[in-house]
Amino acid sequence: MTVRRIEVRERVMARNDELAAQVRARLAARGVTAINLMSSPGAGKTTLLERTLAELGEPLDMAVVAGDVQTQNDADRLAVHTGRLVQAIVTGGACHLDALQVNDALDHIDLDRTRLLIIENVGNLVCPASWDLGERHRVVLFTVTEGEDKPLKYPKMFEKADWVVLTKTDLLPYLPFDVDRAMRYCRQVNPRLQFLQVSAMKGDGMDAWFEFLRRAAAPSAGA
Amino acid sequence: MTVRRIEVRERVMARNDELAAQVRARLAARGVTAINLMSSPGAGKTTLLERTLAELGEPLDMAVVAGDVQTQNDADRLAVHTGRLVQAIVTGGACHLDALQVNDALDHIDLDRTRLLIIENVGNLVCPASWDLGERHRVVLFTVTEGEDKPLKYPKMFEKADWVVLTKTDLLPYLPFDVDRAMRYCRQVNPRLQFLQVSAMKGDGMDAWFEFLRRAAAPSAGA
Repeated sequence: MTVRRIEVRERVMARNDELAAQVRARLAARGVTAINLMSSPGAGKTTLLERTLAELGEPLDMAVVAGDVQTQNDADRLAVHTGRLVQAIVTGGACHLDALQVNDALDHIDLDRTRLLIIENVGNLVCPASWDLGERHRVVLFTVTEGEDKPLKYPKMFEKADWVVLTKTDLLPYLPFDVDRAMRYCRQVNPRLQFLQVSAMKGDGMDAWFEFLRRAAAPSAGA
Repeated sequence: MTVRRIEVRERVMARNDELAAQVRARLAARGVTAINLMSSPGAGKTTLLERTLAELGEPLDMAVVAGDVQTQNDADRLAVHTGRLVQAIVTGGACHLDALQVNDALDHIDLDRTRLLIIENVGNLVCPASWDLGERHRVVLFTVTEGEDKPLKYPKMFEKADWVVLTKTDLLPYLPFDVDRAMRYCRQVNPRLQFLQVSAMKGDGMDAWFEFLRRAAAPSAGA
Protein backbone atom coordinates (compact mmCIF):
# COMPACT_ATOMS: atom_id res chain seq x y z
CA MET A 1 0.00 0.00 0.00
CA THR A 2 2.67 2.48 1.05
CA VAL A 3 4.96 1.40 -1.78
CA ARG A 4 2.17 1.88 -4.31
CA ARG A 5 1.37 5.27 -2.82
CA ILE A 6 4.98 6.46 -3.10
CA GLU A 7 5.30 5.11 -6.63
CA VAL A 8 2.19 6.98 -7.77
CA ARG A 9 3.41 10.13 -6.06
CA GLU A 10 6.79 9.91 -7.77
CA ARG A 11 5.17 9.56 -11.16
CA VAL A 12 2.88 12.50 -10.49
CA MET A 13 5.83 14.66 -9.36
CA ALA A 14 7.95 13.65 -12.38
CA ARG A 15 5.09 14.57 -14.71
CA ASN A 16 4.75 17.92 -12.91
CA ASP A 17 8.45 18.64 -13.37
CA GLU A 18 8.14 17.95 -17.12
CA LEU A 19 5.19 20.31 -17.38
CA ALA A 20 6.99 22.97 -15.31
CA ALA A 21 9.90 22.82 -17.75
CA GLN A 22 7.41 23.36 -20.59
CA VAL A 23 5.88 26.36 -18.78
CA ARG A 24 9.36 27.78 -18.15
CA ALA A 25 10.31 27.44 -21.84
CA ARG A 26 6.98 28.91 -22.96
CA LEU A 27 7.45 31.96 -20.72
CA ALA A 28 11.10 32.43 -21.66
CA ALA A 29 10.19 32.42 -25.35
CA ARG A 30 7.89 35.41 -24.75
CA GLY A 31 10.17 37.20 -22.30
CA VAL A 32 7.79 36.74 -19.36
CA THR A 33 9.15 36.55 -15.80
CA ALA A 34 7.03 34.42 -13.48
CA ILE A 35 7.03 34.68 -9.70
CA ASN A 36 5.50 32.01 -7.49
CA LEU A 37 4.14 33.80 -4.40
CA MET A 38 3.60 31.54 -1.41
CA SER A 39 2.74 31.88 2.30
CA SER A 40 0.52 30.77 5.15
CA PRO A 41 -3.16 31.63 4.82
CA GLY A 42 -3.70 35.27 5.69
CA ALA A 43 -0.07 36.42 5.38
CA GLY A 44 -1.08 39.19 3.01
CA LYS A 45 -0.50 37.87 -0.51
CA THR A 46 -3.65 39.41 -1.92
CA THR A 47 -3.23 42.78 -0.20
CA LEU A 48 0.36 42.98 -1.45
CA LEU A 49 -0.84 42.15 -4.96
CA GLU A 50 -3.61 44.78 -4.83
CA ARG A 51 -1.01 47.46 -4.15
CA THR A 52 1.38 45.97 -6.69
CA LEU A 53 -1.19 45.90 -9.49
CA ALA A 54 -2.13 49.52 -8.79
CA GLU A 55 1.53 50.62 -9.02
CA LEU A 56 3.04 48.29 -11.60
CA GLY A 57 0.13 46.65 -13.43
CA GLU A 58 0.48 48.83 -16.52
CA PRO A 59 4.21 49.76 -16.42
CA LEU A 60 5.29 46.10 -16.15
CA ASP A 61 2.47 44.60 -18.24
CA MET A 62 1.48 42.39 -15.33
CA ALA A 63 -0.80 39.39 -15.30
CA VAL A 64 -1.83 37.45 -12.20
CA VAL A 65 -2.86 33.85 -11.72
CA ALA A 66 -4.65 33.52 -8.37
CA GLY A 67 -5.02 30.04 -6.93
CA ASP A 68 -7.60 29.20 -4.30
CA VAL A 69 -9.02 26.03 -2.83
CA GLN A 70 -12.71 26.72 -3.31
CA THR A 71 -13.43 30.34 -4.22
CA GLN A 72 -12.41 33.03 -6.66
CA ASN A 73 -12.37 35.61 -3.85
CA ASP A 74 -8.75 36.60 -4.38
CA ALA A 75 -9.08 36.91 -8.15
CA ASP A 76 -12.24 38.99 -7.68
CA ARG A 77 -10.54 41.24 -5.11
CA LEU A 78 -7.61 41.80 -7.46
CA ALA A 79 -9.71 42.39 -10.57
CA VAL A 80 -11.24 45.47 -8.91
CA HIS A 81 -7.83 47.17 -8.88
CA THR A 82 -6.68 46.62 -12.40
CA GLY A 83 -7.50 46.44 -16.04
CA ARG A 84 -4.82 43.75 -16.24
CA LEU A 85 -5.81 40.13 -16.49
CA VAL A 86 -6.41 38.20 -13.28
CA GLN A 87 -6.91 34.52 -14.03
CA ALA A 88 -8.44 32.39 -11.24
CA ILE A 89 -7.56 28.78 -10.62
CA VAL A 90 -9.84 26.92 -8.20
CA THR A 91 -8.03 23.77 -7.11
CA GLY A 92 -11.22 22.04 -5.93
CA GLY A 93 -9.81 21.15 -2.55
CA ALA A 94 -6.19 20.54 -3.54
CA CYS A 95 -3.63 22.14 -1.25
CA HIS A 96 -1.32 23.64 -3.91
CA LEU A 97 -1.14 24.72 -7.54
CA ASP A 98 0.55 22.46 -10.09
CA ALA A 99 2.27 23.11 -13.41
CA LEU A 100 -0.62 21.69 -15.45
CA GLN A 101 -3.01 24.23 -13.94
CA VAL A 102 -0.56 27.07 -14.64
CA ASN A 103 0.03 25.84 -18.20
CA ASP A 104 -3.74 25.80 -18.80
CA ALA A 105 -4.09 29.28 -17.25
CA LEU A 106 -1.47 30.62 -19.68
CA ASP A 107 -3.86 29.82 -22.55
CA HIS A 108 -6.05 32.67 -21.26
CA ILE A 109 -3.20 35.20 -21.01
CA ASP A 110 -1.82 37.25 -23.89
CA LEU A 111 1.84 36.45 -23.25
CA ASP A 112 3.03 38.82 -25.95
CA ARG A 113 1.56 41.65 -23.90
CA THR A 114 2.85 40.38 -20.56
CA ARG A 115 6.22 40.96 -18.92
CA LEU A 116 5.57 40.03 -15.29
CA LEU A 117 3.37 37.12 -14.24
CA ILE A 118 2.67 36.65 -10.55
CA ILE A 119 1.23 33.31 -9.49
CA GLU A 120 -0.53 33.56 -6.13
CA ASN A 121 -0.37 30.04 -4.75
CA VAL A 122 -2.76 28.42 -2.25
CA GLY A 123 -2.15 29.65 1.33
CA ASN A 124 -0.09 26.78 2.75
CA LEU A 125 3.51 26.53 3.98
CA VAL A 126 3.85 22.80 3.30
CA CYS A 127 2.52 21.42 0.01
CA PRO A 128 3.24 24.21 -2.53
CA ALA A 129 6.98 23.90 -1.78
CA SER A 130 7.15 20.58 -3.65
CA TRP A 131 5.53 21.76 -6.88
CA ASP A 132 7.58 23.56 -9.51
CA LEU A 133 5.28 25.86 -11.51
CA GLY A 134 7.85 27.03 -14.06
CA GLU A 135 8.56 30.23 -12.11
CA ARG A 136 11.84 32.18 -12.16
CA HIS A 137 11.55 33.34 -8.53
CA ARG A 138 9.98 31.78 -5.48
CA VAL A 139 8.92 34.39 -2.98
CA VAL A 140 7.69 33.43 0.49
CA LEU A 141 5.70 35.93 2.50
CA PHE A 142 6.47 35.51 6.18
CA THR A 143 4.19 37.57 8.36
CA VAL A 144 5.50 39.00 11.60
CA THR A 145 2.37 37.79 13.39
CA GLU A 146 3.66 34.22 12.99
CA GLY A 147 6.47 32.94 15.21
CA GLU A 148 10.12 33.47 14.26
CA ASP A 149 10.64 29.71 14.00
CA LYS A 150 8.51 29.17 10.88
CA PRO A 151 11.57 28.54 8.65
CA LEU A 152 12.72 25.76 10.98
CA LYS A 153 9.25 24.23 11.15
CA TYR A 154 8.51 24.45 7.41
CA PRO A 155 12.06 24.18 6.03
CA LYS A 156 11.30 22.96 2.52
CA MET A 157 9.34 26.12 1.72
CA PHE A 158 12.31 28.28 2.74
CA GLU A 159 14.95 26.00 1.19
CA LYS A 160 13.30 26.25 -2.20
CA ALA A 161 12.66 30.01 -2.07
CA ASP A 162 15.04 32.76 -3.15
CA TRP A 163 13.29 35.72 -1.52
CA VAL A 164 11.51 36.17 1.80
CA VAL A 165 9.20 39.14 2.29
CA LEU A 166 8.39 39.91 5.91
CA THR A 167 4.85 41.31 5.85
CA LYS A 168 2.60 43.37 8.17
CA THR A 169 5.65 45.10 9.68
CA ASP A 170 3.35 47.88 10.95
CA LEU A 171 2.29 45.39 13.67
CA LEU A 172 5.86 44.92 15.00
CA PRO A 173 5.42 47.39 17.89
CA TYR A 174 2.60 45.22 19.29
CA LEU A 175 4.33 41.84 18.90
CA PRO A 176 7.20 39.99 20.58
CA PHE A 177 8.49 39.11 17.07
CA ASP A 178 12.29 39.45 16.69
CA VAL A 179 13.12 40.29 13.06
CA ASP A 180 16.83 39.48 13.41
CA ARG A 181 16.10 36.07 14.87
CA ALA A 182 13.55 35.32 12.14
CA MET A 183 16.10 36.22 9.42
CA ARG A 184 18.76 34.15 11.18
CA TYR A 185 16.46 31.12 11.15
CA CYS A 186 15.75 31.72 7.46
CA ARG A 187 19.46 31.81 6.64
CA GLN A 188 20.06 28.72 8.76
CA VAL A 189 17.73 26.85 6.39
CA ASN A 190 18.88 28.64 3.22
CA PRO A 191 21.93 30.95 3.29
CA ARG A 192 21.14 32.32 -0.17
CA LEU A 193 17.84 33.91 0.86
CA GLN A 194 17.34 37.61 0.24
CA PHE A 195 14.96 39.74 2.30
CA LEU A 196 12.45 42.51 2.03
CA GLN A 197 10.23 43.99 4.76
CA VAL A 198 6.88 45.54 3.90
CA SER A 199 3.63 46.81 5.28
CA ALA A 200 1.35 46.72 2.25
CA MET A 201 -1.35 48.33 4.41
CA LYS A 202 0.75 51.36 5.46
CA GLY A 203 3.13 51.43 2.49
CA ASP A 204 6.42 50.92 4.37
CA GLY A 205 9.04 49.11 2.32
CA MET A 206 6.89 48.93 -0.79
CA ASP A 207 9.37 50.87 -2.93
CA ALA A 208 12.00 48.16 -2.43
CA TRP A 209 9.43 45.49 -3.36
CA PHE A 210 8.50 47.40 -6.51
CA GLU A 211 12.17 47.79 -7.37
CA PHE A 212 12.70 44.04 -6.97
CA LEU A 213 9.83 43.41 -9.40
CA ARG A 214 11.08 45.98 -11.90
CA ARG A 215 14.48 44.31 -11.94
CA ALA A 216 12.92 40.83 -12.16
CA ALA A 217 10.85 41.89 -15.15
CA ALA A 218 13.69 43.64 -17.01
CA PRO A 219 14.57 41.89 -20.28
CA SER A 220 18.15 41.26 -19.15
CA ALA A 221 17.06 39.55 -15.93
CA GLY A 222 16.33 36.27 -17.61
CA ALA A 223 19.54 36.15 -19.65
CA MET B 1 -2.83 8.12 -14.01
CA THR B 2 -5.45 10.31 -12.40
CA VAL B 3 -7.78 7.34 -11.88
CA ARG B 4 -4.99 5.36 -10.22
CA ARG B 5 -4.12 8.34 -8.04
CA ILE B 6 -7.72 8.76 -6.88
CA GLU B 7 -8.09 5.03 -6.25
CA VAL B 8 -4.95 4.95 -4.09
CA ARG B 9 -6.11 8.05 -2.23
CA GLU B 10 -9.51 6.50 -1.51
CA ARG B 11 -7.92 3.36 -0.11
CA VAL B 12 -5.57 5.43 2.05
CA MET B 13 -8.48 7.53 3.38
CA ALA B 14 -10.64 4.44 4.05
CA ARG B 15 -7.78 2.87 6.00
CA ASN B 16 -7.36 6.10 7.98
CA ASP B 17 -11.07 6.12 8.87
CA GLU B 18 -10.80 2.54 10.16
CA LEU B 19 -7.81 3.47 12.30
CA ALA B 20 -9.54 6.62 13.57
CA ALA B 21 -12.48 4.48 14.69
CA GLN B 22 -10.01 2.27 16.58
CA VAL B 23 -8.41 5.31 18.23
CA ARG B 24 -11.86 6.63 19.17
CA ALA B 25 -12.84 3.30 20.76
CA ARG B 26 -9.51 3.01 22.55
CA LEU B 27 -9.88 6.49 24.06
CA ALA B 28 -13.55 5.98 24.97
CA ALA B 29 -12.67 2.75 26.81
CA ARG B 30 -10.31 4.76 29.07
CA GLY B 31 -12.55 7.81 29.40
CA VAL B 32 -10.15 10.08 27.50
CA THR B 33 -11.48 13.08 25.55
CA ALA B 34 -9.36 13.97 22.51
CA ILE B 35 -9.33 17.37 20.85
CA ASN B 36 -7.83 17.90 17.39
CA LEU B 37 -6.41 21.44 17.37
CA MET B 38 -5.88 22.89 13.90
CA SER B 39 -4.98 26.23 12.30
CA SER B 40 -2.76 28.09 9.87
CA PRO B 41 0.93 28.17 10.73
CA GLY B 42 1.54 30.75 13.45
CA ALA B 43 -2.05 31.13 14.64
CA GLY B 44 -1.01 30.46 18.21
CA LYS B 45 -1.65 26.76 18.86
CA THR B 46 1.53 26.27 20.87
CA THR B 47 1.18 29.46 22.91
CA LEU B 48 -2.43 28.55 23.76
CA LEU B 49 -1.27 25.08 24.80
CA GLU B 50 1.55 26.47 26.96
CA ARG B 51 -0.99 28.46 28.98
CA THR B 52 -3.43 25.56 29.00
CA LEU B 53 -0.89 23.07 30.32
CA ALA B 54 0.12 25.47 33.07
CA GLU B 55 -3.52 25.90 34.19
CA LEU B 56 -5.10 22.52 33.50
CA GLY B 57 -2.24 20.07 32.96
CA GLU B 58 -2.58 18.50 36.41
CA PRO B 59 -6.28 19.13 37.21
CA LEU B 60 -7.43 17.53 33.93
CA ASP B 61 -4.66 14.90 33.66
CA MET B 62 -3.69 16.28 30.27
CA ALA B 63 -1.47 14.76 27.64
CA VAL B 64 -0.45 16.43 24.40
CA VAL B 65 0.53 15.02 21.03
CA ALA B 66 2.34 17.72 19.04
CA GLY B 67 2.66 17.19 15.30
CA ASP B 68 5.24 18.99 13.22
CA VAL B 69 6.63 18.63 9.73
CA GLN B 70 10.32 18.50 10.52
CA THR B 71 11.09 19.54 14.09
CA GLN B 72 10.12 18.79 17.67
CA ASN B 73 10.16 22.52 18.46
CA ASP B 74 6.54 22.64 19.62
CA ALA B 75 6.85 19.54 21.79
CA ASP B 76 10.05 20.93 23.31
CA ARG B 77 8.42 24.32 23.97
CA LEU B 78 5.48 22.62 25.68
CA ALA B 79 7.57 20.20 27.74
CA VAL B 80 9.16 23.16 29.54
CA HIS B 81 5.79 24.12 31.01
CA THR B 82 4.58 20.82 32.34
CA GLY B 83 5.36 17.58 34.02
CA ARG B 84 2.64 16.08 31.83
CA LEU B 85 3.55 14.01 28.82
CA VAL B 86 4.14 15.81 25.52
CA GLN B 87 4.57 13.29 22.73
CA ALA B 88 6.08 14.60 19.47
CA ILE B 89 5.13 13.32 16.04
CA VAL B 90 7.40 14.43 13.19
CA THR B 91 5.54 13.82 9.94
CA GLY B 92 8.71 13.90 7.82
CA GLY B 93 7.31 16.40 5.36
CA ALA B 94 3.66 15.31 5.38
CA CYS B 95 1.17 18.15 5.62
CA HIS B 96 -1.14 16.66 8.28
CA LEU B 97 -1.32 14.06 11.06
CA ASP B 98 -3.08 10.76 10.42
CA ALA B 99 -4.81 8.24 12.67
CA LEU B 100 -1.96 5.71 12.44
CA GLN B 101 0.49 8.27 13.84
CA VAL B 102 -1.91 9.12 16.66
CA ASN B 103 -2.56 5.44 17.42
CA ASP B 104 1.20 4.85 17.64
CA ALA B 105 1.62 7.92 19.85
CA LEU B 106 -0.99 6.54 22.28
CA ASP B 107 1.36 3.62 23.00
CA HIS B 108 3.61 6.15 24.78
CA ILE B 109 0.82 7.69 26.87
CA ASP B 110 -0.56 6.26 30.11
CA LEU B 111 -4.22 6.48 29.13
CA ASP B 112 -5.39 5.36 32.57
CA ARG B 113 -3.86 8.55 33.95
CA THR B 114 -5.14 10.80 31.19
CA ARG B 115 -8.49 12.56 30.90
CA LEU B 116 -7.83 15.22 28.27
CA LEU B 117 -5.66 14.60 25.20
CA ILE B 118 -4.94 17.54 22.92
CA ILE B 119 -3.56 16.75 19.49
CA GLU B 120 -1.75 19.74 17.98
CA ASN B 121 -1.99 19.16 14.24
CA VAL B 122 0.40 20.48 11.55
CA GLY B 123 -0.16 24.19 10.82
CA ASN B 124 -2.24 24.00 7.64
CA LEU B 125 -5.83 25.01 6.84
CA VAL B 126 -6.25 22.55 3.96
CA CYS B 127 -4.98 19.00 4.42
CA PRO B 128 -5.68 18.22 8.12
CA ALA B 129 -9.41 18.78 7.53
CA SER B 130 -9.65 15.48 5.60
CA TRP B 131 -8.03 13.26 8.23
CA ASP B 132 -10.07 11.93 11.14
CA LEU B 133 -7.76 11.33 14.11
CA GLY B 134 -10.34 9.76 16.43
CA GLU B 135 -10.96 13.07 18.22
CA ARG B 136 -14.20 14.08 19.97
CA HIS B 137 -13.86 17.79 19.13
CA ARG B 138 -12.29 19.60 16.23
CA VAL B 139 -11.17 23.06 17.21
CA VAL B 140 -9.92 25.55 14.62
CA LEU B 141 -7.85 28.52 15.75
CA PHE B 142 -8.61 31.50 13.53
CA THR B 143 -6.25 34.37 14.19
CA VAL B 144 -7.51 37.91 13.81
CA THR B 145 -4.38 38.80 11.82
CA GLU B 146 -5.75 36.68 8.96
CA GLY B 147 -8.56 37.99 6.75
CA GLU B 148 -12.21 37.52 7.73
CA ASP B 149 -12.81 35.41 4.62
CA LYS B 150 -10.71 32.40 5.70
CA PRO B 151 -13.81 30.21 6.33
CA LEU B 152 -14.99 30.85 2.76
CA LYS B 153 -11.55 30.16 1.31
CA TYR B 154 -10.84 27.02 3.37
CA PRO B 155 -14.40 25.76 3.88
CA LYS B 156 -13.71 22.09 4.59
CA MET B 157 -11.68 22.97 7.71
CA PHE B 158 -14.62 24.99 9.09
CA GLU B 159 -17.32 22.56 7.93
CA LYS B 160 -15.69 19.71 9.84
CA ALA B 161 -14.97 21.70 13.02
CA ASP B 162 -17.31 22.19 15.96
CA TRP B 163 -15.49 25.07 17.67
CA VAL B 164 -13.67 28.13 16.37
CA VAL B 165 -11.30 30.01 18.67
CA LEU B 166 -10.44 33.51 17.50
CA THR B 167 -6.88 34.10 18.70
CA LYS B 168 -4.58 37.10 19.27
CA THR B 169 -7.56 39.33 20.05
CA ASP B 170 -5.20 41.78 21.78
CA LEU B 171 -4.16 42.86 18.25
CA LEU B 172 -7.72 43.85 17.21
CA PRO B 173 -7.20 47.59 17.88
CA TYR B 174 -4.42 47.64 15.26
CA LEU B 175 -6.21 45.64 12.55
CA PRO B 176 -9.08 46.19 10.13
CA PHE B 177 -10.44 42.75 11.17
CA ASP B 178 -14.24 42.67 11.69
CA VAL B 179 -15.09 39.96 14.27
CA ASP B 180 -18.82 39.92 13.43
CA ARG B 181 -18.14 39.46 9.73
CA ALA B 182 -15.64 36.67 10.43
CA MET B 183 -18.19 34.84 12.61
CA ARG B 184 -20.89 35.35 9.97
CA TYR B 185 -18.64 33.75 7.34
CA CYS B 186 -17.93 30.87 9.72
CA ARG B 187 -21.67 30.26 10.26
CA GLN B 188 -22.30 30.54 6.52
CA VAL B 189 -20.02 27.52 6.07
CA ASN B 190 -21.16 25.70 9.22
CA PRO B 191 -24.16 26.99 11.22
CA ARG B 192 -23.38 24.66 14.16
CA LEU B 193 -20.04 26.29 14.96
CA GLN B 194 -19.48 27.62 18.47
CA PHE B 195 -17.05 30.42 19.24
CA LEU B 196 -14.48 31.55 21.75
CA GLN B 197 -12.22 34.60 21.63
CA VAL B 198 -8.86 34.58 23.35
CA SER B 199 -5.57 36.35 23.71
CA ALA B 200 -3.30 33.65 25.13
CA MET B 201 -0.56 36.29 25.39
CA LYS B 202 -2.59 38.74 27.50
CA GLY B 203 -5.00 36.27 29.11
CA ASP B 204 -8.28 37.69 27.75
CA GLY B 205 -10.96 35.06 27.27
CA MET B 206 -8.83 32.24 28.64
CA ASP B 207 -11.30 31.41 31.43
CA ALA B 208 -13.96 30.52 28.86
CA TRP B 209 -11.46 28.33 26.99
CA PHE B 210 -10.50 26.56 30.22
CA GLU B 211 -14.20 26.08 31.05
CA PHE B 212 -14.80 24.53 27.60
CA LEU B 213 -11.97 22.07 28.25
CA ARG B 214 -13.20 21.23 31.77
CA ARG B 215 -16.62 20.41 30.37
CA ALA B 216 -15.14 18.45 27.45
CA ALA B 217 -13.05 16.36 29.86
CA ALA B 218 -15.89 15.69 32.32
CA PRO B 219 -16.84 12.00 32.49
CA SER B 220 -20.42 12.73 31.42
CA ALA B 221 -19.32 14.67 28.31
CA GLY B 222 -18.77 11.53 26.30
CA ALA B 223 -22.08 9.89 27.22
